[in-house]
Amino acid sequence: MTELNGSFHEIALSDPLKARESNPRNGKTMIIDKGLGIRQFKDLLETAANYIDYIKLGFGTTALYPAAILNEKIALAEQFQVGLYPGGTFFEVAFYQGKVKAYLKLMKRLGFKKIEVSDGTIELPEQDRLQAITLAKELAFDVITEYGKKTDGSEVELEAMVQTIQSDLEAGASYVIIEGRESGENVGIFKNDGKIQSEFEHIAQAVSAYREVVIWEAPKKKQQVELMKWFGPNVHLGNIAPEEIYAVESLRRGLRSDTFFLQI
Amino acid sequence: MTELNGSFHEIALSDPLKARESNPRNGKTMIIDKGLGIRQFKDLLETAANYIDYIKLGFGTTALYPAAILNEKIALAEQFQVGLYPGGTFFEVAFYQGKVKAYLKLMKRLGFKKIEVSDGTIELPEQDRLQAITLAKELAFDVITEYGKKTDGSEVELEAMVQTIQSDLEAGASYVIIEGRESGENVGIFKNDGKIQSEFEHIAQAVSAYREVVIWEAPKKKQQVELMKWFGPNVHLGNIAPEEIYAVESLRRGLRSDTFFLQI
Amino acid sequence: MTELNGSFHEIALSDPLKARESNPRNGKTMIIDKGLGIRQFKDLLETAANYIDYIKLGFGTTALYPAAILNEKIALAEQFQVGLYPGGTFFEVAFYQGKVKAYLKLMKRLGFKKIEVSDGTIELPEQDRLQAITLAKELAFDVITEYGKKTDGSEVELEAMVQTIQSDLEAGASYVIIEGRESGENVGIFKNDGKIQSEFEHIAQAVSAYREVVIWEAPKKKQQVELMKWFGPNVHLGNIAPEEIYAVESLRRGLRSDTFFLQI
Repeated sequence: MTELNGSFHEIALSDPLKARESNPRNGKTMIIDKGLGIRQFKDLLETAANYIDYIKLGFGTTALYPAAILNEKIALAEQFQVGLYPGGTFFEVAFYQGKVKAYLKLMKRLGFKKIEVSDGTIELPEQDRLQAITLAKELAFDVITEYGKKTDGSEVELEAMVQTIQSDLEAGASYVIIEGRESGENVGIFKNDGKIQSEFEHIAQAVSAYREVVIWEAPKKKQQVELMKWFGPNVHLGNIAPEEIYAVESLRRGLRSDTFFLQI
Repeated sequence: MTELNGSFHEIALSDPLKARESNPRNGKTMIIDKGLGIRQFKDLLETAANYIDYIKLGFGTTALYPAAILNEKIALAEQFQVGLYPGGTFFEVAFYQGKVKAYLKLMKRLGFKKIEVSDGTIELPEQDRLQAITLAKELAFDVITEYGKKTDGSEVELEAMVQTIQSDLEAGASYVIIEGRESGENVGIFKNDGKIQSEFEHIAQAVSAYREVVIWEAPKKKQQVELMKWFGPNVHLGNIAPEEIYAVESLRRGLRSDTFFLQI
Repeated sequence: MTELNGSFHEIALSDPLKARESNPRNGKTMIIDKGLGIRQFKDLLETAANYIDYIKLGFGTTALYPAAILNEKIALAEQFQVGLYPGGTFFEVAFYQGKVKAYLKLMKRLGFKKIEVSDGTIELPEQDRLQAITLAKELAFDVITEYGKKTDGSEVELEAMVQTIQSDLEAGASYVIIEGRESGENVGIFKNDGKIQSEFEHIAQAVSAYREVVIWEAPKKKQQVELMKWFGPNVHLGNIAPEEIYAVESLRRGLRSDTFFLQI
């Protein structure tokens, strides 16, 4: 991976670029991969690995790959130091069939080092949730969990969310994702038109203590911009489409109109 | 083409994967290619040829390719056993200029083995329609036809649709596509917002006798889900964007939230 | 670059293809590149360089590329004779920091031969605007300017637009872009739903004297179609997504339903 062209910093454009240069970088970005081919996957990593922290193989698509391609993706992500993991729905399929342990072991054997525990579609009793996290930790997985339902019209319940964040972290999770789906519409904090709900202030306040560990699924530009206004350009964002990674990184650095004058 | 990783079947996730394993596979999927480059085309085939039955070169784009690239696409599709064919609009341009025979012969010479006969834009008298199908069959083409107009606000006329399906099949067509355009909005069975019209029950009933040979153009997720609810996960779907093929296959297998609990 | 397959012209489809064959071609098309990888970029050029005149590295994304990839893009664009240039927002960042000269020299050193001068986000006094154009011309840049604000709800002001076009051209600009953003919504001539505003007639009339030098940012199909109806299939179009270049070229040639019967 070549370094950012130094001249941009020294000469013309030092200010907007500085904000994102800490190491390890704050402001994690998670990409949703809905089935990229190997050439596209290499393109993504070679062009943007500097700006990508996690790549999620969306839904249960992990099961669909020819073995050689899945193996190559896992190896490439490792090489570029990007955290690759199977989407939560795949975990939920396994749980629903009573096969969580077999699922985790299989993912381990495939080479995944990170795993998601979620209940966007299924009912996952708290005890089972914590057990799954614990089991994954025992298998040396880095665990990301998710709060929120995928059902149309589902909403964030403030108390339940805060409690889930707390207990997931205590059980060993590194990050908690707030559900926004791939569409970013009519789910969680997003209204039918994809805008953030008007009473977001309470949620933002409640989450502010956890801002370092909460990742917001926010596939749409206006959502990304609004979340940057609430939490700053280093807010953790997820479900970013692969082709939007440079656009999102531009927003974070004030290199796009919508955040040009954002106070950092 | 590597086989699906066997371990997914044996250990963790046997149930959702079984439904799609018949050979030849039921539930055909047709991709619309709006001008993919060769690397993307290879990516698509290497990653997803197992889930793709047909690739349509959308609209009249067939005419726009540099010869070397068009030839390579035709050869690659052949190699991966995916049926490639020029979009119906290209046929309609030829018909409108009185050059159907020259068109079919040229497509033949280029190496296409499949052809679409449609009248989404032009008026195509029934006699000409059947003549075109017959001519294509004589040239050993596998023929797909299409019912429906591309005009904004066009609707399915039940009797005309059933009659077209019947007479096209009698003339030698293998499949009949129901027009949905690339947008999936305000055309055929889709309303302005892309939802399936509320009186769909009559259409579904009328088509049920032909479900093995009808392909529904359904580019949007909610359309794909609704059609799976009407006809099962093996409903034939068309105009799927290349980047959505894993998402659609996930829906068919219950590996995505929207069809997780769909009774197969 | 292989020539278009001659047989399409001679035999089957002469008419729709002829309109775009002048050299140098009328009807410029500008692509917005939001961070394509090198393989995708090669795909784009190999497949569609015949139909692409300019590629803009959108927003300030130029600053985000690993040096090797940026250099390769610049070299590839040169090789395929497509005009590559950094998005206007990058210029505006430089102006806002009082570093226009350093910016232009750096872009020159990187190998760009074309540059955009815009004020979509910042206030750019007329004197500074003309100075920037002049300075860029002195550095042997081909200069494209832009009229219009990126703010939600911003509108075209007829007199100001005409005056800007005139003075930019006098200062040495080759083309003037009319702002439409990447979204094509609620900006310039576009309403909230992306449709062209109803009183467009006055604007079309005012611009008609400058139609050879005005590029309309029009990312959506209905916008492209409407502009073709106003100005003909050779209207200059910008902010075309890379994956839409064959669709747009099909529209220009009457190879897609929406312009099938458009009088050329």
